[in-house]
Amino acid sequence: MLFAVLCIMAQAFPVYAHATAIAKTGIKQQQAITVTGKVVDDKGGPMPGVTVLEKGTSNGTVTDAKGVFKLNVTSAASVLVIRFIGYNDNEVTVGTQTSFNITLTENVRSLSDVVVVGYGTQKKRDLTGSVASVTGKDLANQPVPDVGEALEGKAPGVQVISSGAPGSNVTVQIRGVGTINDASPLLVIDGVPTPADVNYLNNLNMDDVASIDVLKDASAAAIYGSQGANGVIIITTKKGTSGAGHLNFNFFAGVQSVAHTIPLLNAQQFVQLNNEELANDNQAVNPAYASPASFGKGTNWEDAIFRNAPIQSYSLSYSGGSDKSDYYISAGVLDQQGVIIDSKYRRYNLQINTNQKVLSWLKTGSNVTFEHDEKPNGGGSVSGALSANPAQPIYNADGSYSGPVGQSQWYGSITNPVGLYNLTQNNTNGYNVLGNLYAEATIIPGLTFRTTPGLTATFYDTRTWSPENNLQPSPQAQSYLAESYNKSITYNWDNYLTYDKVFGKDHHITILAGTSAEASNFNYMNGNITGFASDLTQQLNDGATLPNVGGDGSQWSLFSLIGRANYSYKDRYLLTATVRRDGSSRFGEDKKYGTFPSASFAWRISQEPFFKDISFFDDLKFRAGYGETGNQNIGNYGFASALTPGVYSFNGTTVPIEILENPSNPNLSWETIKQTNLGIDATFLHSRISLSIDAYLKNTTGMLVPYVLPISTGFTGTTEINAGKMQNKGIEINVNSRNLTGQLSWTTNFNISFNQNKILSLDQNASLFPGGSSIGLNGYLAINQVGHPVNSFYGYVTQGIFQTYYDVMAHAAQVNGSDVYNRTSAGDIRFKDLNNDGVINASDRTIIGNPNPKFIFAMNNSWSYKDIDLSLALQGVYGNQLFNANNITQEAMSGANNQVAYVLSRWEGPGTSNTVPRAIYGDPNENSRISDRYIEDGSYLRIKTLTLGYTLPKTLLQHAGIKTVRIYATAQNLYTFTKYTGVDPEVGANGIDNNVYPVTRTISLGLNFGL
Amino acid sequence: MLFAVLCIMAQAFPVYAHATAIAKTGIKQQQAITVTGKVVDDKGGPMPGVTVLEKGTSNGTVTDAKGVFKLNVTSAASVLVIRFIGYNDNEVTVGTQTSFNITLTENVRSLSDVVVVGYGTQKKRDLTGSVASVTGKDLANQPVPDVGEALEGKAPGVQVISSGAPGSNVTVQIRGVGTINDASPLLVIDGVPTPADVNYLNNLNMDDVASIDVLKDASAAAIYGSQGANGVIIITTKKGTSGAGHLNFNFFAGVQSVAHTIPLLNAQQFVQLNNEELANDNQAVNPAYASPASFGKGTNWEDAIFRNAPIQSYSLSYSGGSDKSDYYISAGVLDQQGVIIDSKYRRYNLQINTNQKVLSWLKTGSNVTFEHDEKPNGGGSVSGALSANPAQPIYNADGSYSGPVGQSQWYGSITNPVGLYNLTQNNTNGYNVLGNLYAEATIIPGLTFRTTPGLTATFYDTRTWSPENNLQPSPQAQSYLAESYNKSITYNWDNYLTYDKVFGKDHHITILAGTSAEASNFNYMNGNITGFASDLTQQLNDGATLPNVGGDGSQWSLFSLIGRANYSYKDRYLLTATVRRDGSSRFGEDKKYGTFPSASFAWRISQEPFFKDISFFDDLKFRAGYGETGNQNIGNYGFASALTPGVYSFNGTTVPIEILENPSNPNLSWETIKQTNLGIDATFLHSRISLSIDAYLKNTTGMLVPYVLPISTGFTGTTEINAGKMQNKGIEINVNSRNLTGQLSWTTNFNISFNQNKILSLDQNASLFPGGSSIGLNGYLAINQVGHPVNSFYGYVTQGIFQTYYDVMAHAAQVNGSDVYNRTSAGDIRFKDLNNDGVINASDRTIIGNPNPKFIFAMNNSWSYKDIDLSLALQGVYGNQLFNANNITQEAMSGANNQVAYVLSRWEGPGTSNTVPRAIYGDPNENSRISDRYIEDGSYLRIKTLTLGYTLPKTLLQHAGIKTVRIYATAQNLYTFTKYTGVDPEVGANGIDNNVYPVTRTISLGLNFGL
Repeated sequence: MLFAVLCIMAQAFPVYAHATAIAKTGIKQQQAITVTGKVVDDKGGPMPGVTVLEKGTSNGTVTDAKGVFKLNVTSAASVLVIRFIGYNDNEVTVGTQTSFNITLTENVRSLSDVVVVGYGTQKKRDLTGSVASVTGKDLANQPVPDVGEALEGKAPGVQVISSGAPGSNVTVQIRGVGTINDASPLLVIDGVPTPADVNYLNNLNMDDVASIDVLKDASAAAIYGSQGANGVIIITTKKGTSGAGHLNFNFFAGVQSVAHTIPLLNAQQFVQLNNEELANDNQAVNPAYASPASFGKGTNWEDAIFRNAPIQSYSLSYSGGSDKSDYYISAGVLDQQGVIIDSKYRRYNLQINTNQKVLSWLKTGSNVTFEHDEKPNGGGSVSGALSANPAQPIYNADGSYSGPVGQSQWYGSITNPVGLYNLTQNNTNGYNVLGNLYAEATIIPGLTFRTTPGLTATFYDTRTWSPENNLQPSPQAQSYLAESYNKSITYNWDNYLTYDKVFGKDHHITILAGTSAEASNFNYMNGNITGFASDLTQQLNDGATLPNVGGDGSQWSLFSLIGRANYSYKDRYLLTATVRRDGSSRFGEDKKYGTFPSASFAWRISQEPFFKDISFFDDLKFRAGYGETGNQNIGNYGFASALTPGVYSFNGTTVPIEILENPSNPNLSWETIKQTNLGIDATFLHSRISLSIDAYLKNTTGMLVPYVLPISTGFTGTTEINAGKMQNKGIEINVNSRNLTGQLSWTTNFNISFNQNKILSLDQNASLFPGGSSIGLNGYLAINQVGHPVNSFYGYVTQGIFQTYYDVMAHAAQVNGSDVYNRTSAGDIRFKDLNNDGVINASDRTIIGNPNPKFIFAMNNSWSYKDIDLSLALQGVYGNQLFNANNITQEAMSGANNQVAYVLSRWEGPGTSNTVPRAIYGDPNENSRISDRYIEDGSYLRIKTLTLGYTLPKTLLQHAGIKTVRIYATAQNLYTFTKYTGVDPEVGANGIDNNVYPVTRTISLGLNFGL
Repeated sequence: MLFAVLCIMAQAFPVYAHATAIAKTGIKQQQAITVTGKVVDDKGGPMPGVTVLEKGTSNGTVTDAKGVFKLNVTSAASVLVIRFIGYNDNEVTVGTQTSFNITLTENVRSLSDVVVVGYGTQKKRDLTGSVASVTGKDLANQPVPDVGEALEGKAPGVQVISSGAPGSNVTVQIRGVGTINDASPLLVIDGVPTPADVNYLNNLNMDDVASIDVLKDASAAAIYGSQGANGVIIITTKKGTSGAGHLNFNFFAGVQSVAHTIPLLNAQQFVQLNNEELANDNQAVNPAYASPASFGKGTNWEDAIFRNAPIQSYSLSYSGGSDKSDYYISAGVLDQQGVIIDSKYRRYNLQINTNQKVLSWLKTGSNVTFEHDEKPNGGGSVSGALSANPAQPIYNADGSYSGPVGQSQWYGSITNPVGLYNLTQNNTNGYNVLGNLYAEATIIPGLTFRTTPGLTATFYDTRTWSPENNLQPSPQAQSYLAESYNKSITYNWDNYLTYDKVFGKDHHITILAGTSAEASNFNYMNGNITGFASDLTQQLNDGATLPNVGGDGSQWSLFSLIGRANYSYKDRYLLTATVRRDGSSRFGEDKKYGTFPSASFAWRISQEPFFKDISFFDDLKFRAGYGETGNQNIGNYGFASALTPGVYSFNGTTVPIEILENPSNPNLSWETIKQTNLGIDATFLHSRISLSIDAYLKNTTGMLVPYVLPISTGFTGTTEINAGKMQNKGIEINVNSRNLTGQLSWTTNFNISFNQNKILSLDQNASLFPGGSSIGLNGYLAINQVGHPVNSFYGYVTQGIFQTYYDVMAHAAQVNGSDVYNRTSAGDIRFKDLNNDGVINASDRTIIGNPNPKFIFAMNNSWSYKDIDLSLALQGVYGNQLFNANNITQEAMSGANNQVAYVLSRWEGPGTSNTVPRAIYGDPNENSRISDRYIEDGSYLRIKTLTLGYTLPKTLLQHAGIKTVRIYATAQNLYTFTKYTGVDPEVGANGIDNNVYPVTRTISLGLNFGL
């Protein structure tokens, strides 16, 4: 597939294309002296493909496979520039010499690329665990509002699932779903762990992000102990650099649209179908619907709620510094309208980062992020627009919102979706501060002490105003106002010593030891009231009747000891050992403290003496690691008995009471993930290609599962115990290649991540039904069952359409209860009698699909030629199923809801269809029951980002004192290849497409301006 | 008085004391060469009193009246150091020369001392208006939690009235009370105007304050237009300076106490009095009180609620910078317990200030203040403790809180104050961010453009928990919880051009022109509920009955054009003209825009050629200015009709309604203050003494007063119109003197401010009663009446005690109604029949006191000798009256409330007292009516701060790399000289002592540590 194509390209185009180009231009020059030479690396190995240029000219050549070059230069004063990516340039004056031996040294800067690994950094090449790193540059080219969305496809093993709703959060899963409970990774911003109840990913201004490092395996994440089980995303914001100040302004503006709408019936088709449904059920048809053709196309309710929506972003930053201090300060505004009417998002960001060298032995600094966002939304729904009657206009003749005007079997019972969106107002205002201070003191050379207090504070208030209205069929008699105020404040304080020393020449030791503390508080208050004299007075004080008030608070805290040791011998054997001991307020009395160890080892075989002669590899490293991490996102008070307030009537007097709901569980603890990781990092073809392969086995134990309380305890119902087991295993492959390195440069990243999930145990081995029975007929939609993947789809199996009544009689009774053979008819769906008991009932349900992809993949290409740059990012998932829950209604053909156009091919007589059943009012055969009828292939390949940029020539700008001007055009989510019939296959982690806000296509123009 | 003493001291000790000291030590040296010389200033004038030292020795002398000196030095290599305060040091090597002519130049830094004047700074010596400046250094020596309190006595014309309650705000009045409405000044922090509804003064960490500048006259304040009428307080926080980094740690810890408690009756005296009261009223006395002596001292309820309370403060800052950028970052914690049980205050501060020179023409910076505070308080009151029965123990034998156990005429009806404080919990949590960014671009030399967006955001939540209790006589059957969440967000954005240029040699012009915009939003939500099953579940969700919910929002905005021009000719004639045009959302439709002009002129006569020979004055400047400013603190919607929500029953159906309360007033506008200011600044005796005298006349016009709506409008009641007039006039004198300048140095500041307030017009000329009739018997306590000062006390006039019943019969009937001569008896107070109509009734009330002081004054002294420093700050007010409202109850002798000990000298028979009436239950003569009985002299002189500090010698510290260590001891509010009999004479701006939290005495030890 794509991968194969890429690999072929990456290896086939090494350096020669460029060499040819240069050689050709070389002919034009006047040549006087012929020089020859050989280029070797610092280990003496010959270097093919190295560019050799005569300085100040375009005369040049490229070394051959043995590193040898030959070039005619103009004079003895000529200077040869020898250049190879990843290595420092070398310059040689020709003089009287005609033969040269030239050595290139590796570029220290790329060698010393560091990744943030939690409580410190590490050289990327010294990693023993699995860490994916994405730099701000990799993110920058995407004009999307959300850092999370920009991360999609950028890191192997990291699945990002976008939501189209303005200001909504993405879902991130690292190496599959680690638990049936909260499987979201820990997000750490500038060293501040953010609380799970606040998603900071979309609070950041993307222009402020310097790098994102994702700790994937236990060896990397164990330093976060009981918070690390689902991986850790570490975001580092930008800082100033010493030297002249920089002023940058970034801007983009674009238009968002729904890339794909679902073809629905038009008015004529709807009326026809309605008549047919009712006729088939022997009911009276609507006399007004006697002439379907007269209804024409009618109202397209999708068009009525979807729109082309503008988005714009302004971001201004300035940064700079000296040897004593540096600063990075930025302000950003994002203003976005949603593609659904009445949805908006506006975000304001301010970032202030400073670092100071206060005294010779004391460094300090601060990072502060302020964010404010406003999210007004209307009160309608996509599913309402899909179901609304196309024969109904949007507005009545008097300008008021239309509604179903008569009997619901003819006109439906959908409240005007445009009216709902426009009248009801939901507003959320968020105010966030995230920041920390640090002081780092050097006690003796190599030994530093660092203390960093940090804070995340989130205030948000919500407001729902639902005015008195006459929207049929459920007019609202009184206006209603609800408000809530919420605050979440989390403090953290890390204190640790780091000792870093090279002993002898070959022994490098780094030791970290310290403490980390966190405390969090959440409080809220809410209330609502009705009875407003006027819709102009939208304040709680103006409501007169039915006041309600509520509020609650919760707290948690964590205190930890952390330790990590890194040892490397001759840069050849690398060892990392980590341990964290966590005490958490969330754990039961007998399990207050958990220890989370990990160890990993890497062998850089390419440094072995015996490997010296194998010149194919520039670097080759094997990694192996094992570790245990915990998941403490188990609720704050799971270990405790819970009291629920209520009222009780004693002898006619109502008194407040508290009901004891369940016994306490002093053994309740974190969920544990034990993970083994094996990896290879290889760089070859003179650093043209670097490849990482990781294989992992993640075993979740102690997963919280419900436990049915024995009646002898005096309680009914369930409590939760640490008894479940789950497994994820997978392989991740990441390839970076520099296909072309000359004037026309081309780099490619390809990554693919396979994961397989299986539930191993659920204690009492009763299957669990996540989400309950809230969707569809007859029960559950998803199931967690031992031996199967998490969140598997669960339902009936269809076997085509009964073509004749004989056919019906020849098979099991399709419905339960009485009168079963009168309820099924030719044209109905034939469900499979899995247990062969002659009747289709709940026992005939089975697992019918898996929302977890077999693999996710992405390919990111960048080209540049002179001042033009082009990038193309593809991204996809493969092998997952989606449950198109919208179609439970939208292809039911059992009521006056509008239907997908697909039902035009419905069964209308023997042989007319074996896939789409007949239309019949009331669905007597329960054709709409949850079945594989709604299961679709969720695989897709998306053209995620296509960007074309042009940077104005520096010579033009120098006079104006401007450093950079780049203009670009970008298409985001330009096209999606998929078989899925819904609006978009990216419907959420559980694979259920139920009234989901669609992911949008954005076409935008942007400007980067630097002073 | 004090002033006279000070002036004598300041002039009598000029420089000779120091000269003598040096001359004496000089004798010890070995002298080889005799040198002579004359020291002149840069205008050639002789300088007496100049210190001349041989460098590196203590050998030295002082110039005589002609500036001549003579000194023996050891060798030709000796260096003479010539030093005079306010001038730069000069050094001369002796060499072969023996006679010297030495010129000292004025210290540019002190010349260029700048004050922040709003949208810019100005050299202090160039001021043409009246601005008082206080530097952080002047504030630093006071270990008080609040910047406002530290300002007390530091600036002439600025009256600060402290409150003792931890975390409470001070009241600031500049040049008297400018309006009967909101007369508080505008507070501007780092250029950000703070909204009037949030007092930021006590949100700041005092260690972060670099300076406070108070714009007093209209010429200075007019640049703030409609916000400047009551003066402007400008606070500037610290910034880093280039050079080595500094790390400072400041700490103090102390004990606060109530300096003076009110002597009350003990149990025996109380019981005796109770018996007497009842006997005098012919009621049965308490049989349990038959033997008063057996009750002994009983309970001292003041001791029970007052305590010695700790206070501590920690503040850590680091600052530094380079030529490219600077930073100041600090963190502080204040932890204070109140002197009343169950009151606490904790505050956390973080300040981050940075400045950057991004590009050669672009400067930027940011100031951000974070603050969080917690204020838990109990639910009792001081007045409860004053009134509680001393014969009642605090606790019952079973440990529960005691209460009045029987009939109230014997035991009183005061709920146990200790119980109330301990059981009821009031908590307030505040979260504040105040900050701005600026960018300043130099367009051409002299012309800069500055843009500064700013923000103040305040979130606070309150919570009152009042548990079910059995406190007699009003036990509470159900627990009660109330919460509120509040947010106030104000944005401001200033944009202005400044042009600063010297033309020719003598013409200096500065022109400012720009815009200023502000927008503010306030929203809140509150709710309460009762009916809790358990006192352990203190969340709104746990309440079962009687939910209430409320909430509201308000907004205002302001857009302004600002302009200012400064012109100076030869530094001799100084002219400032200012104009601001404000458009405010608060003003009525026809008065949306107001223009606020001012002009002022200064004549530096000391620069005139004819003044050259008058050597007495170093500097002499006359100032004159006039301007108009506005007060827009008139409410957000005063101009509009108001709707009040309610319910109404139509035919038995209750429906919500909105009631129109008053008509709109399109003419409603700001209140205007027209102020004329005349001033003199003089420096003489070689800068030893500087003196400023200001005289001002402030006329308030358009003061909002109630207007009784004619019944023809269809409304009853009143609306507000801009029709009142008020006048303040006064004189301010400020003297700084350097009494001693040698090793023993002594500086003194004395300031005194006279002000006289008069109401000139109240439109319909009906007197107004601020505060209504909430205090005392028979009505109003304070009055605003034309021709009298604002908030005058209003009541009856007493004429001693009736000694005999004959006496009673010989005077006007003392009470209204029937049976009047049976209600008055010998021993009752004789009220004066002002209108001679033979009966004492409401018409016999008059103005009986004035809460506005005749003058306020302060004297601040600093001494230093070697490493020891001592400072003493005195502060006082004179000529104001206080209304001791506590005594309405506390000396009534009319019920079972405890009384002040003063009532022991009560009337008990003819001739026993002519001041304290008889004790009689029920007060039939209404002795407790509001009268001059409660008026006391409010003058006081306070030893505000006494600090003794010791700085460790630098030589000791250098080895440890430490810059400064200073330890100090401070007494705050050490002693107060006053005739006032209440707890403390500083009771609040209106002079009414009613259940006021006492100002406290604090003794503390502190440390300043610098690295």
